[in-house]
Parts: sequence; C-alpha cells; structure tokens
Amino acid sequence: MSDVLVIGIAGGSGSGKTTLTKNLINYFGDQIAVVHHDNYYNSHHDMTFEERCQVNYDHPDAFETRLMIEQLHFLKQGRSVECPVYDYSIHDRVEETVTIYPKPIILVEGILIFADRELADLMDIKIFVDTDADIRLARRIKRDIRDRGRTVDSVVDQWLTTVKPMYEAFVEPTKKRADIIVPEGGKNPVALEMILGRIERHLS
Amino acid sequence: MSDVLVIGIAGGSGSGKTTLTKNLINYFGDQIAVVHHDNYYNSHHDMTFEERCQVNYDHPDAFETRLMIEQLHFLKQGRSVECPVYDYSIHDRVEETVTIYPKPIILVEGILIFADRELADLMDIKIFVDTDADIRLARRIKRDIRDRGRTVDSVVDQWLTTVKPMYEAFVEPTKKRADIIVPEGGKNPVALEMILGRIERHLS
Repeated sequence: MSDVLVIGIAGGSGSGKTTLTKNLINYFGDQIAVVHHDNYYNSHHDMTFEERCQVNYDHPDAFETRLMIEQLHFLKQGRSVECPVYDYSIHDRVEETVTIYPKPIILVEGILIFADRELADLMDIKIFVDTDADIRLARRIKRDIRDRGRTVDSVVDQWLTTVKPMYEAFVEPTKKRADIIVPEGGKNPVALEMILGRIERHLS
Repeated sequence: MSDVLVIGIAGGSGSGKTTLTKNLINYFGDQIAVVHHDNYYNSHHDMTFEERCQVNYDHPDAFETRLMIEQLHFLKQGRSVECPVYDYSIHDRVEETVTIYPKPIILVEGILIFADRELADLMDIKIFVDTDADIRLARRIKRDIRDRGRTVDSVVDQWLTTVKPMYEAFVEPTKKRADIIVPEGGKNPVALEMILGRIERHLS
C-alpha cells in the first residue's frame, strides 16, 4: 500500500460532488475507499436536541477534522480505521462505527475538506466541483424535502442564515487550492472521463 | 484519421494557456497539431497603420473565425490546411501561410475560442485556464515590454481600455462552456498529468 492515491472532492452543498463520488465508486468499485467529512461532525452528547439544532454545521469548527486526518494517515499506511457515523435525524454521532478498509484509491469528500491545510496536503489531487448557487439551492430544497422531511421555509432560512454565508466565507476561498475545477460535477462526462483516466493510470 | 481528439485551451491573456500548450507539445511532439486563434486575426490591408493600431483585438469580431472553423473541419477529416500568419509588428496578416498537417490530437488555443458556439462545438474537451487578473496583468506587462518593445504605460492603458473590459464581456462568460477549469494553467502539474493521461488514453 505504499502507492495510495488520495483524491479530494470538494464543493458547495448541491454542487454535484456526491454524484461524482458515486460515479467513481461505480466504476472502480472495490478499489476505492471513501471518507466523508460529514461522518466526522463533532459529537453533541452534552447538548439538548434544541441546542444541537442551533449548531452551525457549515462552519469548519463543526467537524472533528483532527480525527479524520489521523484516520487518513492510517489508511495511507494500509491500515483499517473505525470511521464515526453521524445521524442527521438526531444531530449527533451514534455509538456504532463503520470500518473503512485501505484501498489503492482513497476518495475524501466534503464541503470543507480544503479548508484545513493539513488535511488538504494529504491529497494528491484536489478537485473542486463548481456549480451556480441557484442550481445548488434548487437541488438542496428538493433533496431536503424529499429525503429529510424538511419544509421549504426551513431549508431556505438555513440557506440564507448559514449555508450561503459560510460557503462564501469558508468554501469558495478554498477553490484556490484546487488542482482542477469541474463545472457541474455530476453531469460532466468529459471531466469524469479525465478523472477516470488519471485513476486508471495510477492503478495500472 | 476518423478518431481525432480536438482539445480547446482558452483563458485570458497571461493565464498560462501558452505554457500548457507548450507542455503538451513537448510531451506528445509529432502527434499534436496546434491551431492558434491569433493567426486568424482579420486582414487589415485596407487600413493605415494608425487605423490598425486602433482595432480592438480583444473583441470576437477581430478574428476570421469562419476560416478557422473550415480549416478545423479539414484537419478532422485528415486534410492539411494553409493557416494564415499574423504579424503583430505591422498589425496585419502577411502573404505567406503555414501548413498544418493533420494529427490524432488537435489543440485549439486562444482567448476567445469558446465564444463562438460553432467553433466550441468542434472540441471534444474544453479546458479553461483560470488565473487571477492581477497575475495575468503582471505577466502581460513583463512579456510585452520584453518581447514586443512596449512601454508600461501603453500596456496598462490597453489593459484598462480593452483587454480587461473585453475579458469580462466575452471571455469570462465562456468559462461556463468549459469541461474543466485549470487554475494556474502553466504551473499546475496535477492538472497537466490528468490531461496527459486523457490524451494517452486516446492515443493508445
């Protein structure tokens, strides 16, 4: 496992980074390990549910990034890790963990993964998925109503009070750290083929 | 020659697209043909030198793009073309032409190559080299003083009166048509390796 390729996929909420990640998993299957920054949200065992609802989940401080960096080092060394699991419905980390096994390709995915310099420096290729803010909001509204039982008002309020200002303060500036920027990440077959080619080159 | 890969490299003046183009030529040598949009600047035989100096060379209408599209079709069909040659010192097209031979890879390079939809549609991969405006101005000043005998004042005046406003009006919007955006195109080894991999994949 001396030759592990770590690929970071960042971008705003609704940018298409999950679709790009899924496309890569579908293509390379068992040769890829995926590490989602979202799984490293801080534990909130000491807070009431109401307090947890008030947490700013779009700020870098919402994550236990230190643990993620440690686990990435282990994965690069060929060791398995016990990744924490976060439950959105209760806004808290749960007891069980998920084992991530080392693979020749490690995908690191998340909105803020380029914001921490030490984390970003662990990546061989940094991809920023860039999609217009209105398109991202439209997707977020549809997803959160469909999958998370939210109302339009609550999604839009959260967007305006935290998602958008945090994006502009902490996510957008990290685009400068990207090696390539992929417009419309989820629906961009030309960029996908380029990334597939780079990974194939590493595997062969 | 049924399987020709056409790669467009766009980006503002001083963005690093020439360096990226040169890196690809160095790597693939004889398997690449390069078509520079700049060679298709309109003839100005009917103008005085003073009139030619007043032409807005950063506007899409400054180019004979129709001829470039025709010649690209020929190259894709495996036919050689006689590419016009433009002389910056007299601001005019000269008599001689340069023969471009068909190759499996055709690079199309220029600031405004994505502005014409028909031209853009001829490209299989559209790469936009994106570099901060201040960095681009700094490079342009150094280049134009060193290679083109210009003064700082004249370069800065041209930047403010035409290069910058034309970039914002006609170049920046074409970033939306790109398949991938390469920050700092000339000094971006990770993106370069990804593009090399994609071309190698086509050649093999």
